[in-house]
Amino acid sequence: MNHSLHTDEIIRLALAEDIGTGDVTTRSVIPEGKKIKGKFTAKEDGIVCGLEVAQRVFGFLDETICFTPAIRDGEKVAAGRLIAEIEGPAHGILSGERVALNFLQRLSGIATKAADYAAMVAGTNAIVVDTRKTTPGLRCLEKYAVKTGGAGNHRMNLSDGILIKDNHIKAAGGISAAVKAARENAPRMLKIEVEAETPEDVKEALEAGADIIMLDNMDVATMKKVVDMIDGKALVEASGNMDRRDIREVAATGVDMISIGALSHSSRALDISLKFE
Amino acid sequence: MNHSLHTDEIIRLALAEDIGTGDVTTRSVIPEGKKIKGKFTAKEDGIVCGLEVAQRVFGFLDETICFTPAIRDGEKVAAGRLIAEIEGPAHGILSGERVALNFLQRLSGIATKAADYAAMVAGTNAIVVDTRKTTPGLRCLEKYAVKTGGAGNHRMNLSDGILIKDNHIKAAGGISAAVKAARENAPRMLKIEVEAETPEDVKEALEAGADIIMLDNMDVATMKKVVDMIDGKALVEASGNMDRRDIREVAATGVDMISIGALSHSSRALDISLKFE
Amino acid sequence: MNHSLHTDEIIRLALAEDIGTGDVTTRSVIPEGKKIKGKFTAKEDGIVCGLEVAQRVFGFLDETICFTPAIRDGEKVAAGRLIAEIEGPAHGILSGERVALNFLQRLSGIATKAADYAAMVAGTNAIVVDTRKTTPGLRCLEKYAVKTGGAGNHRMNLSDGILIKDNHIKAAGGISAAVKAARENAPRMLKIEVEAETPEDVKEALEAGADIIMLDNMDVATMKKVVDMIDGKALVEASGNMDRRDIREVAATGVDMISIGALSHSSRALDISLKFE
Amino acid sequence: MNHSLHTDEIIRLALAEDIGTGDVTTRSVIPEGKKIKGKFTAKEDGIVCGLEVAQRVFGFLDETICFTPAIRDGEKVAAGRLIAEIEGPAHGILSGERVALNFLQRLSGIATKAADYAAMVAGTNAIVVDTRKTTPGLRCLEKYAVKTGGAGNHRMNLSDGILIKDNHIKAAGGISAAVKAARENAPRMLKIEVEAETPEDVKEALEAGADIIMLDNMDVATMKKVVDMIDGKALVEASGNMDRRDIREVAATGVDMISIGALSHSSRALDISLKFE
Amino acid sequence: MNHSLHTDEIIRLALAEDIGTGDVTTRSVIPEGKKIKGKFTAKEDGIVCGLEVAQRVFGFLDETICFTPAIRDGEKVAAGRLIAEIEGPAHGILSGERVALNFLQRLSGIATKAADYAAMVAGTNAIVVDTRKTTPGLRCLEKYAVKTGGAGNHRMNLSDGILIKDNHIKAAGGISAAVKAARENAPRMLKIEVEAETPEDVKEALEAGADIIMLDNMDVATMKKVVDMIDGKALVEASGNMDRRDIREVAATGVDMISIGALSHSSRALDISLKFE
Amino acid sequence: MNHSLHTDEIIRLALAEDIGTGDVTTRSVIPEGKKIKGKFTAKEDGIVCGLEVAQRVFGFLDETICFTPAIRDGEKVAAGRLIAEIEGPAHGILSGERVALNFLQRLSGIATKAADYAAMVAGTNAIVVDTRKTTPGLRCLEKYAVKTGGAGNHRMNLSDGILIKDNHIKAAGGISAAVKAARENAPRMLKIEVEAETPEDVKEALEAGADIIMLDNMDVATMKKVVDMIDGKALVEASGNMDRRDIREVAATGVDMISIGALSHSSRALDISLKFE
Repeated sequence: MNHSLHTDEIIRLALAEDIGTGDVTTRSVIPEGKKIKGKFTAKEDGIVCGLEVAQRVFGFLDETICFTPAIRDGEKVAAGRLIAEIEGPAHGILSGERVALNFLQRLSGIATKAADYAAMVAGTNAIVVDTRKTTPGLRCLEKYAVKTGGAGNHRMNLSDGILIKDNHIKAAGGISAAVKAARENAPRMLKIEVEAETPEDVKEALEAGADIIMLDNMDVATMKKVVDMIDGKALVEASGNMDRRDIREVAATGVDMISIGALSHSSRALDISLKFE
Repeated sequence: MNHSLHTDEIIRLALAEDIGTGDVTTRSVIPEGKKIKGKFTAKEDGIVCGLEVAQRVFGFLDETICFTPAIRDGEKVAAGRLIAEIEGPAHGILSGERVALNFLQRLSGIATKAADYAAMVAGTNAIVVDTRKTTPGLRCLEKYAVKTGGAGNHRMNLSDGILIKDNHIKAAGGISAAVKAARENAPRMLKIEVEAETPEDVKEALEAGADIIMLDNMDVATMKKVVDMIDGKALVEASGNMDRRDIREVAATGVDMISIGALSHSSRALDISLKFE
Repeated sequence: MNHSLHTDEIIRLALAEDIGTGDVTTRSVIPEGKKIKGKFTAKEDGIVCGLEVAQRVFGFLDETICFTPAIRDGEKVAAGRLIAEIEGPAHGILSGERVALNFLQRLSGIATKAADYAAMVAGTNAIVVDTRKTTPGLRCLEKYAVKTGGAGNHRMNLSDGILIKDNHIKAAGGISAAVKAARENAPRMLKIEVEAETPEDVKEALEAGADIIMLDNMDVATMKKVVDMIDGKALVEASGNMDRRDIREVAATGVDMISIGALSHSSRALDISLKFE
Repeated sequence: MNHSLHTDEIIRLALAEDIGTGDVTTRSVIPEGKKIKGKFTAKEDGIVCGLEVAQRVFGFLDETICFTPAIRDGEKVAAGRLIAEIEGPAHGILSGERVALNFLQRLSGIATKAADYAAMVAGTNAIVVDTRKTTPGLRCLEKYAVKTGGAGNHRMNLSDGILIKDNHIKAAGGISAAVKAARENAPRMLKIEVEAETPEDVKEALEAGADIIMLDNMDVATMKKVVDMIDGKALVEASGNMDRRDIREVAATGVDMISIGALSHSSRALDISLKFE
Repeated sequence: MNHSLHTDEIIRLALAEDIGTGDVTTRSVIPEGKKIKGKFTAKEDGIVCGLEVAQRVFGFLDETICFTPAIRDGEKVAAGRLIAEIEGPAHGILSGERVALNFLQRLSGIATKAADYAAMVAGTNAIVVDTRKTTPGLRCLEKYAVKTGGAGNHRMNLSDGILIKDNHIKAAGGISAAVKAARENAPRMLKIEVEAETPEDVKEALEAGADIIMLDNMDVATMKKVVDMIDGKALVEASGNMDRRDIREVAATGVDMISIGALSHSSRALDISLKFE
Repeated sequence: MNHSLHTDEIIRLALAEDIGTGDVTTRSVIPEGKKIKGKFTAKEDGIVCGLEVAQRVFGFLDETICFTPAIRDGEKVAAGRLIAEIEGPAHGILSGERVALNFLQRLSGIATKAADYAAMVAGTNAIVVDTRKTTPGLRCLEKYAVKTGGAGNHRMNLSDGILIKDNHIKAAGGISAAVKAARENAPRMLKIEVEAETPEDVKEALEAGADIIMLDNMDVATMKKVVDMIDGKALVEASGNMDRRDIREVAATGVDMISIGALSHSSRALDISLKFE
């Protein structure tokens, strides 16, 4: 993945907010020109993600810093495993350390969680996908972490997917009218997804020609019933607090996708340390 | 708090990444000019934070949207409590809904966690403070949420606090040398904080004239011992995986600050919904 | 249409490049504070587009300028028809005049051309759509002009539509392999479009499960044949120098979309004048 | 020409708007790391312009892409002529192809048109020059294309040339007053150009000391008369829908410059293809 | 003067660098919502310049701050004279005070110096003009201050004036060749100025058709001689450490312009205070 | 010092404002590709500062320009001393020359002034420090120049130092209340400085626990008295028009810091020339 176009702005913002007018400690305590060498190590098991971003962080500060990944994004590591080595001027390395770790730990945390969920539905028809409940400014990176962990991406933003929710349905005067309006007015390259709360909604959406039907907060029995009713005529997504439910059971109903907002909005950072020799 | 200088850039970034080339669903399904009205409601107990940011999000999209907070940042709410009302053009409101909620839920989640920790040490000498382990791009907002929740802020970035860590000490040739260098070279408006791993470190830091001493990963008994040794001649900060320890017990040793990275790096979003009439 | 998020950057760029360090003529010749009043008038028949952009141009220069559209974007005007009135400080109006006209004339030129093409296929199954051959920096505005003129939009950019072209097919090892890879790896909200040069390509794409098939540079007879073969199982797009062909005849083959790059890459500005009283 | 300061912003904007959140087709269909090789070829006769811009486009996406021009900006090519070769990672090349071509084709189209007009007045005293009727955001590039094609540049923007038009004249109270005000208030490094609609205007401008006189929409006979009257005491520019007139005839009147807005506002893209091996 | 397009960027930069992550003193000591009222007063005699900029500074921080100028840019004030009043929220006013004064004092210092020089040559044929030796980032504002003080502006930048200096002459192979090249290649709206170090240079420049001749570091006697020689056939500029010379004497030679770099590169801030009630 | 994060924005701004749409003189008079070679030389005695910035200026214009410093920032030079050599394409060098000199001369002027003041207090307990009275946009660079010249830095901005001034004191209801509020609400890493106008103020500040006391505009006798009273219990800063006083005498009172706004707000550029072979 080439991150430059999508991540430079957020990397600059992160460095600017962390460095302020300069790293007064390093600048006043460590002689300019001093070189150091260190290792990034996993302190718990997980999936690593964000190595290229970490590398760019240091590159912004000093082009002579050498950051050498020992593994690739997406690899599963055990606690104690070497992730990357770094070598170069102490000033740049120490000033960038925190920002690099902040990216690396957060993205690895999301990738690890995504891998956990993906494992839960392995072998079923369903895949786990993310949502738009991402951290402001980190959309592309967090979606990349989800994918790196082995889950899938739902739409990236409001422009690359049509998802007709309850509010749209109300405003348009019903499911059929809403789907019709979307088919007439929206670009034809996009599938039309419709949110359904009841089997009746599902039926109406199906007849209106929806390409994807999202089952919102349905119990498993109803889900099973509507999946049978849909019978492959549309893709089916299960949605609604899925992180608090037994997603293996949800997957067993035959849905195609299970979307989980908690993947990005409530992940825990993976513990990673940087120690110098 | 006047957010404009510090938050406009991240709000714009968040809107840009979520809206892409436009909200195709809303644009194709809902007539331009249609007005709607809705309520933001807490779906679990917590401290609300980020109302002004949410308001700015909608302001960027349509200046005629009326977002009216029902409470103020920092108020404790119970599940079901009304947080804010919104009214105006459906296009702008529906296109901004997700971004506004992403900010509001994350900041409220952090404020809630900060309030929990603050409650744990209430009545002791210690306050809970945050760290630099914040989400890239959200430093100012997350530190604001910590404060809103009732905990305190450690330094904002590398330029408004001197913190001499183990790596600085090694590179400078010991604690005394490092403190001396900081006193000579750094701006005099900043206190000098030194990381100490052993009582011997603490002693050396104290003699070198450190203003604050950070006890890194010490057990409670040792902490108690060094707090007595320091005897008010420097402020004392306890640090190191504090989210996994009994911080009430830590506070009882007499330390002045307990810093907790998990406040910002691993918080959970507070559940908040937006429903339309 | 609310243009602000998508057009402010290009408006600022356009004003910056046209004003430079200041309008020396106006500044040296016309007294500050002098007010003027003028009319934008169509000097040839066409569809007007870009009134809100023109309004924002003047707003950037002086918030007291009053720009009042006499019609709405998308209206057909005859030569001589009043388009908008403007009133306010001469300095701001004269300094912004050229940039406002540059936007208005270009967008109206595109809308006019789009309307012409749309009229050619009226009553058939086909709609005319645009391409990614737009002017650098003006993608959103030019696509908006196409829509305003009555034609449709193909994908906005590389992220909101899958279009597997000959180069992708070669690199992936054939149409079937490419479609399979897209289905497995790309977001499921997007339809899969495949470029086909021969009936055999069409057949393979159809069997691979393509949602849309683009017929590249086919003669009308072949087009007719493959449209029959596809028989509604996929949408069909006709493409390739369509501006030099009889698109009514192409439409008659039953294709669903005819894409025309010339809509944006080779349009002529509509003649519009601004005269002061 | 070193484009970096003037073109990076518009190149970034063009890439951002075309790539969106990523090239889903290439990313899902073509293996990362795959290399390709291709040729840019002219598909019609013309003057090529924009090679350095095209090169920068690819450089933004992947620094290892090798773009090698076979000719230089300003060369006349026949249909079929190789323009440049490209080699490197397929991901970067395919994602940048459209933007590079959009720049290259538009600038070559303008250069070609400029060359045509320059040829029409070859051997006369007149040169053809451009106007400020350029595409928003592309001012510098389009003026560069005009020059590359062999025509000349009028002022770049409102700050590097004084041009007193009818509106300025009215507001200032006549030609003499306007010229006097300009001489007193404007920087002395700039010549003063005045728009004249009648021989009387010309006379007044000449007496006021105008350095350049622009004849607006005059017929050829009148032009001839006033050129004789001016007799070298000022430069003379012919202006007003010159693209619809016989500019050879206009040139024969002895004017120094003929300005043509259509050079930039209504040019047609030159047909250029990129094919891979 | 409408400053917005030219000064917003530098105002934002100035505020960002001065406020950092927030005004900790004001925020921690003064209650939010507290209102204050103050007066800007001249503490020495001079010309005031920059009132609109100061106003914009406060506007960026809080739109409810009321900044009311008591005089206009360009007015001469005596020590003790009220310049402006300010009223509104203490937070915004105290946080913006320093930046507003930094602009106001610097620009007033330059305007005052410009007025001093202008007074020295009053009644002669010469005007005093500035140079490109301005403070990085403040070009437009400093040139505006020079003009406000009553002196004139030389070219704003490298694109709105042709000035052939010794290095250009050497590279071009002499004055005649350089002037010829400029006439052929540069836009015709710009006059051609040539630097001359000797009477011979002046003669060559005149014969080559230079519109303006800059006399570099000439003694007064030689200047007088060449002014006579030029005899109105070109404008004449005297240049070179003019701040260390008797410019009244220089003006008496009959030159048209005297350029003084010290106007902007070595001005002293005018003393202005802000006191609250 | 690695300038890139802090200076790129102001360098770009400076180049943009000086180059405008291009260096018309160089472009029209000097053949593209022509190489030149030159020397930067001190024309008066002083401390040189800004070599890395000058280097970056040329790097933005043409990466092949070779700028080789002959000395390092902070070195004292005599008139005539070689400062740096430059070699490369004439176009880039001549277009960047003025901006590079503007930075270099200003920063060297400040460093020289700082060195002068530092020399005046050499051997005393006091150091000279700067203020926030810097040029808008140049805060970091000017503070760097002060340090390079041998003086010290006061706070960089409003967020990395607490300074309770008279207005804060009034608003908070007295010195004691203000200091108490600061201690409770501000980050604990920052020392608390209080402005005092009288010995009574000093006493109150001391009792309130101020870490630093600023003596505002006190006469030397009073200063001496309060320094004795403070007796090392707080750092002492002398402030208020110090550039017009005998700072050696001020230093002799035993104060720790003497702050001088004139260091940055009224410095004179150091005379440096660039001559080509």
